[in-house]
Amino acid sequence: MSADKNRVNVEIYGQQYTIVGEEATSHLRYVGLSVDEKMREIAEKNPSLDTTKLAVLTAVNAVHDYYKLLERIKTLELEQKHWKK
Amino acid sequence: MSADKNRVNVEIYGQQYTIVGEEATSHLRYVGLSVDEKMREIAEKNPSLDTTKLAVLTAVNAVHDYYKLLERIKTLELEQKHWKK
Repeated sequence: MSADKNRVNVEIYGQQYTIVGEEATSHLRYVGLSVDEKMREIAEKNPSLDTTKLAVLTAVNAVHDYYKLLERIKTLELEQKHWKK
Repeated sequence: MSADKNRVNVEIYGQQYTIVGEEATSHLRYVGLSVDEKMREIAEKNPSLDTTKLAVLTAVNAVHDYYKLLERIKTLELEQKHWKK
């Protein structure tokens, strides 16, 4: 089942992580590096946060952005229904 | 500048976090609870992970999902260009 899955090792905020997915390894690496970048951005603005809080807030931001895109998709799909009429 | 921002306190994986944003407090709370839920899901499958790694992997998953939606949006926007012709 996992035979067609790719895995990459990425360093995120000084720790090694293995990211597994069906996407190309370049994409999986890109996802890991994005998280590393986002954590560093938040750390810069909030130097007193410990790594766990930093990671949780990074996850909060990512989920927040995800829901915003989801709203955008709903709008686009509604518009599409209209245009297809 | 931050006068029109809302803030909520949410417990994520046993710790209190303040989430700030322009969205309704109910939405901000929902985002926090989603992260809590995702962390618990990953913890259940990987009981040996410490909280930091758990939070980082939650962020990785959220960013991964975000990029998938972004692809979907690009497709929808291309389709829309086609339908509007």
